[in-house]
Amino acid sequence: MEFQEHLATRIKVVNEFLAGYMERDGIAESETLREAMKHALFSGGKRFRPILAIASAEVFSVPMERVMPTACALELIHTYSLIHDDLPSLDDDDFRRGKPTAHRVFGEGMAVLAGDALLTAAFGLIAENGRVPGVTERQVLDVVADVARACGAAGMVGGQAIDIASTGTELDQNGIEMMDRLKTGALIAVSARVGAILGGASKSDIESITDYGQCLGIAFQIGDDVLDAVGDESKMGKRVRKDAEKQKNSMVRVLGVDGARERARYYIGEAKRAVNKFGERANAVVKLADLVLNRES
Amino acid sequence: MEFQEHLATRIKVVNEFLAGYMERDGIAESETLREAMKHALFSGGKRFRPILAIASAEVFSVPMERVMPTACALELIHTYSLIHDDLPSLDDDDFRRGKPTAHRVFGEGMAVLAGDALLTAAFGLIAENGRVPGVTERQVLDVVADVARACGAAGMVGGQAIDIASTGTELDQNGIEMMDRLKTGALIAVSARVGAILGGASKSDIESITDYGQCLGIAFQIGDDVLDAVGDESKMGKRVRKDAEKQKNSMVRVLGVDGARERARYYIGEAKRAVNKFGERANAVVKLADLVLNRES
Repeated sequence: MEFQEHLATRIKVVNEFLAGYMERDGIAESETLREAMKHALFSGGKRFRPILAIASAEVFSVPMERVMPTACALELIHTYSLIHDDLPSLDDDDFRRGKPTAHRVFGEGMAVLAGDALLTAAFGLIAENGRVPGVTERQVLDVVADVARACGAAGMVGGQAIDIASTGTELDQNGIEMMDRLKTGALIAVSARVGAILGGASKSDIESITDYGQCLGIAFQIGDDVLDAVGDESKMGKRVRKDAEKQKNSMVRVLGVDGARERARYYIGEAKRAVNKFGERANAVVKLADLVLNRES
Repeated sequence: MEFQEHLATRIKVVNEFLAGYMERDGIAESETLREAMKHALFSGGKRFRPILAIASAEVFSVPMERVMPTACALELIHTYSLIHDDLPSLDDDDFRRGKPTAHRVFGEGMAVLAGDALLTAAFGLIAENGRVPGVTERQVLDVVADVARACGAAGMVGGQAIDIASTGTELDQNGIEMMDRLKTGALIAVSARVGAILGGASKSDIESITDYGQCLGIAFQIGDDVLDAVGDESKMGKRVRKDAEKQKNSMVRVLGVDGARERARYYIGEAKRAVNKFGERANAVVKLADLVLNRES
């Protein structure tokens, strides 16, 4: 219960930062575009990636103020990826978190642009982290490079491409794990990494937190797939049972629901083991891993 | 003629850099995605933005090697914007530079992802400029922030949003100038600026080159609109006469072809005047401005 309250406080801080950001003068030259960006950004997301970035900074005794712009930039990236993913030419979803998706409200062209604008804004916001006391410019440039790698053709977007290119054909368990590692794991892993980079962590500590993030990310995607198979549409706020209908590759397809759950549990165990060396400083990241295992939406 | 040869040499260097970049190991996890990115990137573009970045670095006596990653990143951004712009939900173009557009070859979903990947890659490439001798990390972070501002909701994407939101209603000359300044001018202006930033130019010199870039950018967009109205489809390699058909706002619609040409000439004059103070060091940027005025495709 205590952790839930702690989490709620942090979500509030992240939401306030994002709201302040989107209300800045001159943030958008088109009011419709700004509305489309806000529609997607403030539709009740759990802010998992910023929270994770803040929690992993904590492992290195870095206060959340020091990573806040970057943490929130990761939410802009996550949001852009959802807008584009929901487009008719990709996953074709009309609802997310119980609300109509951006292209349903603003039209497909404006939704493409809103995603583009959020992705672009993310890198501007990361650059702003270079003005925060205690952070070096080298660290911020490393974060820019790291986020670009994790979110681009060799990471998240690459995983999405594998997803759509493989739909209709059958990937094996290894292929699915690779896809999950990219399309969901890469952004989650880099969310964990940025706290370490901005905290001036050693190479070996950055590796440990990366291992944690990668395992957490795969477990997160498996959790998504399990929820698609067995979840409650009203709790989820989006259409479920899509993967089977569309013959999408997922861990549930190759291992069944119980097998996929078992696999998620394994990865959560691995994630926790990777940060065991940090002792009590890793409390928050360990609790986040438990949350991923037990989530219902 | 001499300048044309000089230009051809530089285009070759830019193309080699881009080709090398796209062939790097691990640049993309999906071969289809990489092919879609390359299809758009190597379809015969004039590389105007990288060439402009290199020419404006020259004003500040900065060798092209020092700005090359950033210059080429601007071409990645330009290419992403064309892929997304050509989508059926935006300008709906089937051909560009005489070749079928990315979504015609790879499908709409893959085209969205290829654009996303190129935009993301651009920021990674800019960050790499931080490893180039003679460039400070502060300068590169300034470039990241500047490019994000110029290409996002307050710049290029904002202009695109105004374009689609205003189609069918009539903007006046000021409204069109504002739209042109954003959707085309912002990226061209920042292309001119980055050479100055990475060259350690003074604030007032950066302002002068920005003025140059903004005027050049508006003239460039007016030139596009004139070519749409009177250009030769075979030289252009894309469908023309679209603006009138789609009731798009353009300077040609409010001023006619001759009036628009006159306006472009005015802006080219203003662009050249802004860099007059740099004397001979501005030779290349002045010649580029003349090229914009006289282009046929």
